[in-house]
Amino acid sequence: MSDVPGFGKALVIITGASRGFGRALALEVAARVDATGSVLILAARSDDKLHELQTHVTRVASELTVRCVTADLSRKEDVERVITVIRETQCADIDHLLLFNNAASLGDVSRYCRDFTDVDEVDSYLSFNVSSALCLTTGVLRAVPRRVGLTRVIINISSLCAIKPFASWVLYCTGKAAREMMFRVLAEEEPDLRVLSYAPGPLDTDMQLQARSSSADGCVRSACSGLHAQGQLLTCEASVSKLMKVLLEGNFTSGAHLDFYD
Amino acid sequence: MSDVPGFGKALVIITGASRGFGRALALEVAARVDATGSVLILAARSDDKLHELQTHVTRVASELTVRCVTADLSRKEDVERVITVIRETQCADIDHLLLFNNAASLGDVSRYCRDFTDVDEVDSYLSFNVSSALCLTTGVLRAVPRRVGLTRVIINISSLCAIKPFASWVLYCTGKAAREMMFRVLAEEEPDLRVLSYAPGPLDTDMQLQARSSSADGCVRSACSGLHAQGQLLTCEASVSKLMKVLLEGNFTSGAHLDFYD
Repeated sequence: MSDVPGFGKALVIITGASRGFGRALALEVAARVDATGSVLILAARSDDKLHELQTHVTRVASELTVRCVTADLSRKEDVERVITVIRETQCADIDHLLLFNNAASLGDVSRYCRDFTDVDEVDSYLSFNVSSALCLTTGVLRAVPRRVGLTRVIINISSLCAIKPFASWVLYCTGKAAREMMFRVLAEEEPDLRVLSYAPGPLDTDMQLQARSSSADGCVRSACSGLHAQGQLLTCEASVSKLMKVLLEGNFTSGAHLDFYD
Repeated sequence: MSDVPGFGKALVIITGASRGFGRALALEVAARVDATGSVLILAARSDDKLHELQTHVTRVASELTVRCVTADLSRKEDVERVITVIRETQCADIDHLLLFNNAASLGDVSRYCRDFTDVDEVDSYLSFNVSSALCLTTGVLRAVPRRVGLTRVIINISSLCAIKPFASWVLYCTGKAAREMMFRVLAEEEPDLRVLSYAPGPLDTDMQLQARSSSADGCVRSACSGLHAQGQLLTCEASVSKLMKVLLEGNFTSGAHLDFYD
């Protein structure tokens, strides 16, 4: 593995790791860290899928320590549990801390703004997609404080929707815009951190399937279907590769929004 | 009053109406609507201040119907109560519906991102500043449906913080960015609406006092203090005038962010 540029000894945390982009990320990262001394923490709701992924990762990097945390990040106690696992992880001599805030939900795209009348529903979406990402990040930063020789990188898996409105996607756009600003403030406050909001492009995932099958807005639905029909959806692997390249080169401005197509 | 350009017969709803920008808005709007047939609905937490304002408004426009709704928009049932008052308001022959989503809180600016570790605290901020604004807006749009001859205008009182991060203001920046995107999606979905996010500039209000006295970040604190010391804070009246001009001219693109200084 010595010819593959990598992150050295790293503590890597990936949320929403059991499928789609998070899963592809886990597999790629596993090949980019020193197997000895690095720790990969995978969080997701599905215990089965996490353990299946762990087996797979171990095939790529047999020496790597992989910890699975079954956690639903819409629950406060589960956010706390992920932080506890990180706090209990030995990482005194790592070179890199990488936190991938990947877990997210599309929200109900089958309705327009005018159909969102329940404060609790909006609250619950924002709690999972915004508040939990902030509190997980701060928990991780407190568990792994700054130190000479340690590069701490916080990645927000963002979207074009963070900067461009899409009809019938009010929750998703609002949540992504909120997250992006939250991480811009973090970058402003902590100049020693490397913060990146990465929009992975339209991926061939379950989320895209949900988007093209249930978006209330006809134009958005056809745009998503068109991408699918014309084979323009990206594989998670292709988008993960771009992100790896950006992270390894490290030339981005902290807090920046970077799209797959940039 | 016939020489003052105005909104004709209007139903106007202002949240956070009891002080600062909301109060100045109420007084100015009262002089810009036909007193007969228009209704001004003022919502805020303080019953006393609302009724003091009502007395004041009645001095400006004695015939105007003014309804005060004591409501804490961080409470779901209070959002519902404001909507109920609107639903019960006779407005079959109005020319304009104007909803000013003005209520907001600065959040705790005495701490940095790294000090926000409690999901519930972030949730509660977002519920008041984001979810309630969405649900109030949708409630109002349902209560006053589109009709030929009716112009419906939704104003989001925004901030420079919606587009620019400020250290130690993570809740405020995140909330304002979220609201702004939410209203951009609304504008995208409902082309018959006129949606405007207005950043009123640095106002000489209690919120600015809080900002300059308690912001954790020294640079932000001095910038705020500097504006105050050098007499550069705007009066609410000056900023309201600009907003009135923009709304009456009606040349803005729906969904746009417009700053006092634009």
